[in-house]
Amino acid sequence: MIPHTGNVFVISAPSGTGKSTLTSRLVSNLEGLIFSISTTTRAPREGEVEGRDYFFVDPDAFDHTVAEGGFLEWVEVYGNRYGTGRDWILQQLAKGVDVLLDIETTGALAVQERMPDAIMIFLLPPSAAELERRLRSRGKDSEEQIEMRLKYARHELEFFPRYDHLIVNGDLDVAYRQLESVVLAARSRRPRMEPTARQLLSEF
Amino acid sequence: MIPHTGNVFVISAPSGTGKSTLTSRLVSNLEGLIFSISTTTRAPREGEVEGRDYFFVDPDAFDHTVAEGGFLEWVEVYGNRYGTGRDWILQQLAKGVDVLLDIETTGALAVQERMPDAIMIFLLPPSAAELERRLRSRGKDSEEQIEMRLKYARHELEFFPRYDHLIVNGDLDVAYRQLESVVLAARSRRPRMEPTARQLLSEF
Repeated sequence: MIPHTGNVFVISAPSGTGKSTLTSRLVSNLEGLIFSISTTTRAPREGEVEGRDYFFVDPDAFDHTVAEGGFLEWVEVYGNRYGTGRDWILQQLAKGVDVLLDIETTGALAVQERMPDAIMIFLLPPSAAELERRLRSRGKDSEEQIEMRLKYARHELEFFPRYDHLIVNGDLDVAYRQLESVVLAARSRRPRMEPTARQLLSEF
Repeated sequence: MIPHTGNVFVISAPSGTGKSTLTSRLVSNLEGLIFSISTTTRAPREGEVEGRDYFFVDPDAFDHTVAEGGFLEWVEVYGNRYGTGRDWILQQLAKGVDVLLDIETTGALAVQERMPDAIMIFLLPPSAAELERRLRSRGKDSEEQIEMRLKYARHELEFFPRYDHLIVNGDLDVAYRQLESVVLAARSRRPRMEPTARQLLSEF
């Protein structure tokens, strides 16, 4: 096999669309595809492992990486910062590994700015009513939180024109097959396969 | 389901790469994907059905379509002409049907000129030696014909930079999965899914 570089996939979806289910299945089914590992300033929780769940750093180290432009995107949540480190991803790509970034639209678009080749995937609920039904049936949120999630879903959906693939999660297996196809199809793209084709030509 | 337009897929491969096996399986497995039907001036052979195997026309009708630019590509073989009619394909696309064109590189590039959105797929043998082995094991060709096929394979392979996807057919199932993924992934592309996303947004 001729070495080739991996692809970056960025996936966003409104809360309740089934993104976690789909992406976990994807990463466990497909060889050569891994989740991106975020860097964070928050303390490890019980059971969390450095380099598997997160890269844990202190605030100064985080600042330093921000200053040198080492994050594709970063965000502060409840006083903790979380970032997607560029160098670690580039190392995976160089090994031919595909990297999946599961991030909300704002972060996703920041990544797209810095990595225009990233393949942008948006998961859609089949309808607004169905999204609402799913959020309610989880029983996790108050009425007010559900309203807020729906409002935020609309806000996120407005960014769909910046994504390359839009996948409706009505039936989980159908959506899964679509998602997997996007990853597999990217693996046969010409730029990635060019070394293989050149090698083949040289044999004739 | 919101109406959308179909995609055109053009697939080329050197003789002996396994294209027929893969494309037949693809079209029979995937709903909403059909082979393009060529127009020809040759007489129907026994069992051939108008509008299923070919559109059979007389030379004058063929000339007329050529003159009005109605073919995406056409070719003359042993005094018979064969063409890919544009209008029939556009009708399929308007119905949301995907159309697969199985054509050699020259015709494929002519189609690409006229339909820049066509998704171009090139099937590659795993190696020159394996292609030669497959051609020999078919037992169909003389030594001279095999030499000619290999020379022509090299000629065709030189066009790989014009294709979007390069799929190596080493293992048939792996290649099939790759091929199917290209078709399925195209179905979730943003331009095609845009009406669905707009409809969804309007529900919030």
